[in-house]
Amino acid sequence: MKCRRCRGAAIIDVRRHNAAFCKECFQHFCEEQVRRAIEHFSMLHQSDRVLVAVSGGKDSLAVWDIMRRVGYEADGLYLGLGIGDYSDESGRYAREFAEARSLKLIEISLPNDYGFDIPTGSQAARRAPCSACGLSKRHLFNQAALDHGYDVVVTGHNLDDEAAVLLGNVIRWEAGYLARQFPVLPATDGFVRKIKPLVRLSEREMAAYCVMNRIEYIVDECPMASGNRHIGYKEILNQLEEQSPGTKGSFVAGFFDKAHARFEQVAVDEREGLRPCTQCGAPTTNDVCAFCKLQIRASGVIT
Amino acid sequence: MKCRRCRGAAIIDVRRHNAAFCKECFQHFCEEQVRRAIEHFSMLHQSDRVLVAVSGGKDSLAVWDIMRRVGYEADGLYLGLGIGDYSDESGRYAREFAEARSLKLIEISLPNDYGFDIPTGSQAARRAPCSACGLSKRHLFNQAALDHGYDVVVTGHNLDDEAAVLLGNVIRWEAGYLARQFPVLPATDGFVRKIKPLVRLSEREMAAYCVMNRIEYIVDECPMASGNRHIGYKEILNQLEEQSPGTKGSFVAGFFDKAHARFEQVAVDEREGLRPCTQCGAPTTNDVCAFCKLQIRASGVIT
Repeated sequence: MKCRRCRGAAIIDVRRHNAAFCKECFQHFCEEQVRRAIEHFSMLHQSDRVLVAVSGGKDSLAVWDIMRRVGYEADGLYLGLGIGDYSDESGRYAREFAEARSLKLIEISLPNDYGFDIPTGSQAARRAPCSACGLSKRHLFNQAALDHGYDVVVTGHNLDDEAAVLLGNVIRWEAGYLARQFPVLPATDGFVRKIKPLVRLSEREMAAYCVMNRIEYIVDECPMASGNRHIGYKEILNQLEEQSPGTKGSFVAGFFDKAHARFEQVAVDEREGLRPCTQCGAPTTNDVCAFCKLQIRASGVIT
Repeated sequence: MKCRRCRGAAIIDVRRHNAAFCKECFQHFCEEQVRRAIEHFSMLHQSDRVLVAVSGGKDSLAVWDIMRRVGYEADGLYLGLGIGDYSDESGRYAREFAEARSLKLIEISLPNDYGFDIPTGSQAARRAPCSACGLSKRHLFNQAALDHGYDVVVTGHNLDDEAAVLLGNVIRWEAGYLARQFPVLPATDGFVRKIKPLVRLSEREMAAYCVMNRIEYIVDECPMASGNRHIGYKEILNQLEEQSPGTKGSFVAGFFDKAHARFEQVAVDEREGLRPCTQCGAPTTNDVCAFCKLQIRASGVIT
């Protein structure tokens, strides 16, 4: 197996590109895919203040690393979710990464700063843990970016994540979710810009990236995510990819290029119905935003 | 297991409706699903002359049977594709069904009437057999309906067929195919109306329908379809249905109700570019339609 770029000995194949790479050229490949995603979707201006949402997993640490290598002065944001040992360990990986590179890492703790954690909070609010966690992350990443003067929040969603979420949204034809599934969501009243620069890179490639760059990350899946529907969708997409390499990439890219605009108006209409949350001021369709509702319901049961 | 409708002993369960039925009530269920599909999508007027495209398989014989039971005087059309024993046998089932019920069956033979068959024709034209077959069927069903004065062609596509085709169209985001995937395609210049009244009924239910009604049909899959991509999509959808009964139904119905209209303009634009085929007069985007091209390429190699 020869490296497509330098013809040296390859150490990783990328079947959907019908390619293989040596260590140096794989590094180049990953950076190039991020550069292309940023350019194709006009994700960033050079003057932007950039905040990376860091979980301690491979994707968020890799995107932080790559963003800096391709020339963006990104800081990190770690959100402690209070999921027992899992959160302790993931926080440690995020801190170690930042310290070793002298990077700025902002930390927020759901238990310490907001008085609840995901396990008890989701139970008290009768929400699935992944749902309570997702809405907390979206709310707090945005709030932290606004509070600290960042223009854009970067998340580490990779091609596999996007394909699985897309398949779920398509299977249920969730027009609103399809309208908001895009590698760049522009800043609007009360929301900073959100971007996903890893949208052209797979889960496996991000694991390889971390190994090759000696980035230590939390390997375990979140213990609360087991049975999560997206894991089933990922398996299905892996079957399709196995039969026909490139399926995931063209599924996701095809949606962005040929279908997303057909749903976009749904998001525009939804935004027009937004007003400030009476508790925290964040944009919401109700009097009280979903995060504040969760916090109110959860705060009664924290021991 | 009790029948949902009459509380007698059930002989078949329909998990996506969380129901089971006895023989009589299953018959009622199937007819009711066809009636609902016809009504919901305004497929038919009582005065329509109706032609059912009959392959000799379970779906087309069942839809012909059900259409007559719910009150439509439908005739049948059998197209001989020249696929060896498979075509001989499927033709026999179609003829026997029609004769036993004194129904009118129009027959067209690709080898006798058009000078080529699917195996040699697809090879000569360098098309996949399923592609050559599909375009021949679409062309000749429409042509026969026009020639014999029918208003509408009925096909036996069931819920599993529609779900598999939809998944394929979505995975590749084929906007034109998505625009034309609908249970009723209105008549336009040179095209009769096409309808799919089985869109609310599954493959398994149609097999059960035929068994219960002693309808003999060809059980084997077409020998040329092995490895067909849609078979893989059906397997994937079966996995999803197994985990969460009703997934296929809501995937297909959700597309029709919430997404199809967003793609519809593509089909309208495509229709505007149509002109008569210089060989046969059928609407086409080129000088010569795909069927005539296939026939021209194929006719050289028939022995």
